[in-house]
This record gives sequence, structure tokens and C-alpha cells, in this order.
Amino acid sequence: MNEFELIQHFFTRSACAQGGENISLGIGDDCALLQIPAGQSCAVSTDTLVCGIHFPDNSPAFLLGQRALAVAVSDLAAMGATPIGFTLALTLPQIDAVWLQGFSEGLSAMAQRCAIALVGGDTTRGPLAMTMTVMGAVPKQQALLRSGAQDGDLLCVSGPLGAGAAAVPVVLGEVDPQTIDADTLQSLLAAYWSPQPQLQLGQYLRSKAHAALDISDGLLADCEHIAKASNVCLQIQQAHVPVAAAARQVLGDAAALECALSGGDDYQLAFTIAAGELGQLQQQFPAVRVIGQVCAGVGVELLDDLGQPITQQYSGYQHFN
Amino acid sequence: MNEFELIQHFFTRSACAQGGENISLGIGDDCALLQIPAGQSCAVSTDTLVCGIHFPDNSPAFLLGQRALAVAVSDLAAMGATPIGFTLALTLPQIDAVWLQGFSEGLSAMAQRCAIALVGGDTTRGPLAMTMTVMGAVPKQQALLRSGAQDGDLLCVSGPLGAGAAAVPVVLGEVDPQTIDADTLQSLLAAYWSPQPQLQLGQYLRSKAHAALDISDGLLADCEHIAKASNVCLQIQQAHVPVAAAARQVLGDAAALECALSGGDDYQLAFTIAAGELGQLQQQFPAVRVIGQVCAGVGVELLDDLGQPITQQYSGYQHFN
Repeated sequence: MNEFELIQHFFTRSACAQGGENISLGIGDDCALLQIPAGQSCAVSTDTLVCGIHFPDNSPAFLLGQRALAVAVSDLAAMGATPIGFTLALTLPQIDAVWLQGFSEGLSAMAQRCAIALVGGDTTRGPLAMTMTVMGAVPKQQALLRSGAQDGDLLCVSGPLGAGAAAVPVVLGEVDPQTIDADTLQSLLAAYWSPQPQLQLGQYLRSKAHAALDISDGLLADCEHIAKASNVCLQIQQAHVPVAAAARQVLGDAAALECALSGGDDYQLAFTIAAGELGQLQQQFPAVRVIGQVCAGVGVELLDDLGQPITQQYSGYQHFN
Repeated sequence: MNEFELIQHFFTRSACAQGGENISLGIGDDCALLQIPAGQSCAVSTDTLVCGIHFPDNSPAFLLGQRALAVAVSDLAAMGATPIGFTLALTLPQIDAVWLQGFSEGLSAMAQRCAIALVGGDTTRGPLAMTMTVMGAVPKQQALLRSGAQDGDLLCVSGPLGAGAAAVPVVLGEVDPQTIDADTLQSLLAAYWSPQPQLQLGQYLRSKAHAALDISDGLLADCEHIAKASNVCLQIQQAHVPVAAAARQVLGDAAALECALSGGDDYQLAFTIAAGELGQLQQQFPAVRVIGQVCAGVGVELLDDLGQPITQQYSGYQHFN
């Protein structure tokens, strides 16, 4: 099977490559053509996952397909954008029909959940890696930036944190899954392999949040991005940070808290919002939690129950330390 | 230097990352925001280059930056699109400031020539590879597809072919550059390292050509794509195929012709057009050559001077044979 037949078979015919709203030309020409509705901007983001760095080299293909797309679409959610299409640059060490079938099915499953379609890509030979570029539409002037946080805003997160990072030892095979109860195991693996991009919340926040991003590097590291871009200080009350029950179950409270603060891989949203918006927001999105506030200053301050700074160092995940 | 500082230093501050027309938000948030002018579609294409497969592992960083972007932008030219922005997913084995400086300068040089801006990306650790996703705008219903070739059209190419492929032995160090005269050497290396995407021609052809693509896999293989998508036969008169002088100089006529027919790496456009359009077209783009015609049937036929099919097999470059 040559390259063209490979792409034809596994991707052009996959469920996620059958077009969608606002796609006037999909896979198969020099470019795809997307329609951005009048009055909207095209939001675009790129993520690369490399085998052995972002996922273990025995990762199940279906799960990998799901996760790779979810991680990328999460950036659209963080802007308040509505997904339209994505391209996939896939580098493969060899053709493996079973692997490709599983991967494209996982991709299609997540694409359906996110209402996004595969519109193009490239397949090359080399060490296993994939780059997704996702595109969506967001009304002009309503995109959720990192730079709008205001003194007095509440700092919120969209849901419990830490399960993605707590799952890593299980995913890597460092912990025997038999030692974990079935419900906890399922929660951990779901958090890692099929994070749900917070698209509905992102779109709801468009005219409401002052700043937002998705938590990929860890709560503290990502809040630093908001603080820096907005030129404010974000104060986080440690006791208010929602820690995923599955993470506490498998790691204990202290290590689970560390996962929630700096583990990354959560793909929940962190955002700042005026206090007056909170009631209606939590009615529609009951998992949202207030974890702190925005004040004048710089950086991120983690506070204990007495409002005193906690000096322990946490650091987000970085590739080149 | 950590990942964020790396990106900050070499890419956020690079000349090509300073925004541009139709870019309302560049690097630094979860997504970039592009403006697609009213009445236009967003054209998008992705290309991956892997070290050791698409370029030799001692490639000069500046030249590699130029070439990687040119190859990707060529797909926008082939659709008749006007470039807006691109993302870069760069996988690096290690941080090398000199390499990064050279690469970002090469990228910026080509970005300036193409009027396209870097709007985002991802940097990961791993074997050297890069994926570019380019985005542009093209008026609705005017994009140049592969599927519109009509019986009776002329088949044209935008300029001489074969120099990119003829340069490969020199680029790989298999041929001593000292054995090649200076002008020829310069032509070959320019064809390989800084192909010029045919943007002006592509935009001119929008309301005129019936089908078009850029020649990346080789003339014959790419014309097969038009033939298949348009459900027609493309007849190519071998004697009319323009062979780059530098390719003939260094390889002789027969091998240079083979490069022109099936070498790939040309990034010229192949397109079909009604005969009545030819005069004005060649006045504005004198390098355009008619190399054949479109007729009823299937596939590509290469014809000799007497109009007889040439049966010799040529094949385009494919990664997984």
C-alpha cells in the first residue's frame, strides 16, 4: 500500500473526514476551504505529541487518537471558539493497518464529540509523532484572551484537577492497575485518554470572562500566563482548589493536591470573571469552582487558610528544562 | 533556557512573528485569531518535513527555514489563495541557539517574500522535524481545485522543471560542487532551498484556470491527480515540457528530462485553461508553457513528437513504497 492509498483508506474514508458545517472543501486538494461566519474570526492552534515524551510508546491507538485531538481542541475551548476543522500531520515508523484503523476510530470518536472534521494533513515516515492544527470560529471582539484579567475578578476553574497527572503512572505501567478499584481506575484513564474540551463553557464565557486559558501545563504555571499577560496578581486559595476524587483515592491528599496544582494534563479551563456573573454561571456549569481572586501585583500567590503565602515551589511541565 | 523562553526568544521576537494584515492576534495565547475578508474562504494546508527523509541532517538552518515555509505556502499558491498566517510545530533533538537563530531568520526571509506571518506553534523535544500549517484567503467559488479540468483545455506549467530534483545529489553531498560551474550551482541550490511559491500566478488564475495544483511529487504524478479528480485524460507532449537549464547542464538532457517529469520538488504550478486565455496569460507570465491538452479519457499520456504514447515508466516520489 503506497502513501496515497494509505491516506485514502484510513483518513479520507474515516468518519471524521466526511465534512461538516462551514467546510466547503475537505481532504484531497492542495488546501481545504473553511467558511468563517460573517462577523467572526478564525481561531487556530497547533499541538504536537511525540511518542516517548507526550505518550508512552505502547499507547493504544484508539485512545491516542482521542487524546491527541482533545488536547488540541481544548485550545479552541479556551478561546470560546466553535470548532470547524483540523489537519493532522502524522509521522509513522511503518504502516500498521491495525494501528491506523484504531487511531482513526479514536480520532473520529473525539471529532464527533467536538463537532470538528478532519480537513487535511500529511503522512510521513519517521519516529511516531502527530501534530494537530485545529481551527474554529469566534465572534470578533469576544474571544477569551489571557490578557483581560481585572483587579477584583474572581479566579475560577471549570472542574476538578489532578486526575490526568495522577493517571500517568498507571498509563506508564509503573502502577499495577489491579491495585486500584475499578471506578477510580476508570476515572483516571478517562481523564488521561479522553479529556473533554470545555467547549460549551468556553462559548458561554465569551461575553463574560475577562481572561481564560486551558490548564495543560498545570494550574500554577498556567495561571502565571494569565498574570503576566494581564499584568495582575492571581491569588489562589489552596484549600479551594478542587482536587479530583480519583487522584486523592490513588495518591493520597498531599500528592493529589500537587497533581492538581502542577501536574498538568487537565484540560479544564481557568478563567477570571466579575463576581456578579458567578450565580448564573454556576447554575449552568455546576462543576465551576472559585479558587481565588485577581488583585494588583504580579505573578501567582498560593495562599493557606489564613491567607498566608505558601512558599513551596511547584512547577509546571516543561519540555526543555 | 526553558521551553517558554526558547519560544519567546527565537520565534515570538522573530521578524516573521510581528503580525500582519488580517491577523488580529498572533503568538502567545491559546489560539491566534485571523480575519478572513468578507466573501472569502479560509484555505488551509499542512506539510511535514522530517530530517533524513525530506532534508539531509546537515542542512543549513537558514536554508531549511526558507524551504520548509516555501513548500507549505506553495499549496496556497496552488489554490489561488492570498497568504495570511502559519503555525510551526518544531521538534528538536536539543536546544541549539545558533541553529534556532539561523532557522528563524530563514523562516522570516521566506515569510517576508510571501507576506505571511507566524501566528503560533509548538516546540517539542524529539528527532528533528517540522510541520507547517499555512492559512490564507480566497474568494468564494474562485479557489483553484484539481477537479475542474475540461475536455479541450490547454495543460500548462508555470516555468521550467527539474532543477529541484537535479539539486538533490549536490544537497546530499554526493556530487562535488566544485565540478559544477558557479551559475549552474547557484540555480540548482536556489531551486532546492528557496523555491518561490507561485502566488501571483495562482491569484491571477483564480477566475481563469479550470484546474490547478503545485508540482511537488513530480509532473506526471501530480497530473495524475488532476486527471483523476477531473475525470479526464491529460496528454503531455514530452518535447514541450520545459526542462530547467541548470538540470540539463549538470545531468545531461535525458536525466534532466526525467527530473522534470518525475523528480518532484519543483513547486511550479500545473493548470488547465481555455485556449482563449493563453495570450493574456503569457503576456503577464512569460515563463508559462503549454505542455499538452485535456481530452476525454483517464490518466496521463506522455506523447512523443509524432503524438505516439511513450510507455517508459516514471513515478513520482512516495514515502511508503
